[in-house]
Amino acid sequence: MGVVTPPKQDRSRATRRKLLESAVACLAERGWSGSTVSVVAEHAGVSRGAAQHHFPTREDLFTAAVEYVAEERSTALRGLNPQGRAEAVAALVDLYTGPLFRAALHLWVAASNEPQLGGRVVDLEARVGRETHRIAVGLLGADESVPGVREVVQGLLDMARGLGLANLLTDDAARRRRVIAEWTAIVDRALTPSR
Amino acid sequence: MGVVTPPKQDRSRATRRKLLESAVACLAERGWSGSTVSVVAEHAGVSRGAAQHHFPTREDLFTAAVEYVAEERSTALRGLNPQGRAEAVAALVDLYTGPLFRAALHLWVAASNEPQLGGRVVDLEARVGRETHRIAVGLLGADESVPGVREVVQGLLDMARGLGLANLLTDDAARRRRVIAEWTAIVDRALTPSR
Repeated sequence: MGVVTPPKQDRSRATRRKLLESAVACLAERGWSGSTVSVVAEHAGVSRGAAQHHFPTREDLFTAAVEYVAEERSTALRGLNPQGRAEAVAALVDLYTGPLFRAALHLWVAASNEPQLGGRVVDLEARVGRETHRIAVGLLGADESVPGVREVVQGLLDMARGLGLANLLTDDAARRRRVIAEWTAIVDRALTPSR
Repeated sequence: MGVVTPPKQDRSRATRRKLLESAVACLAERGWSGSTVSVVAEHAGVSRGAAQHHFPTREDLFTAAVEYVAEERSTALRGLNPQGRAEAVAALVDLYTGPLFRAALHLWVAASNEPQLGGRVVDLEARVGRETHRIAVGLLGADESVPGVREVVQGLLDMARGLGLANLLTDDAARRRRVIAEWTAIVDRALTPSR
């Protein structure tokens, strides 16, 4: 960045970002089979040639897109300063109920049947998963040196993922709120050292 | 049933069952886009005409298949007599790590982008979800008249669903075992009335 950055490079960066954001939006709305490089280019208002210059293959585009948006979300989460565990749990569950989760879900499910996508998505999932876990530990103020705490945090993230899945076809917000309220109390007890 | 059932009807029932089981297997292995009525008929060793006699549309076949196999699993679960909550939790989590969950996941994700499938899968999910919840309450020996217990059971099933999703692309069994061990103890405390 800085004053010497040529405008051309700025434009290229802006195009790349538009393509990544459009790719996640398309994947969330249309699924893998409805999301091609052409569809994303049109959604982003970019020529097909420019899209292919940035992302030579469909797999490149969509794995980069999910990783980019996941990193944006991680950055936002790291900036949070939750007032207590209820806010921390709510912020973590929110990760799994928006377009990013829908997009990632379509990518995972497609990867389970498409070998050329499988390996890349496994790597991506591992990186994003580790980062999300690290952020969760921080937000919850969890002490992982205590035996069992690591698994409490992992199980909570598994539950958040399951709540996201339950929200895929119908608006599950009312039920989700009740489940979260009950489980926040349970997680709070499980993370609070007993004397 | 009984002695007067004509052999022709028996054969028809057996064909139907073979088609339903093959449909779940195909959906789990190849996903929605790779699973057509023809593919399932071939897998089942049944003519395409016979398959279409039983299931006029692709949507009929796959929603019926997921419902049939889910009912088979429910019947098996209702027959269990778990020795303690660890066994009950393990049996519930197992529901979400086999071919039935993979097949259902492909169907849900396809339904989120295909309107003609959406409504039917929402109904199916509601029926199967209610039945699974009822079975979970029984297996866990949970008393739903106690405030919060309903949400404890729901959250546990959400966690089981999330654990199933984490197992989609890689074998997550070792991590899952540790999470389940920790959370079984937590669920056990949450379900045990305090004095």
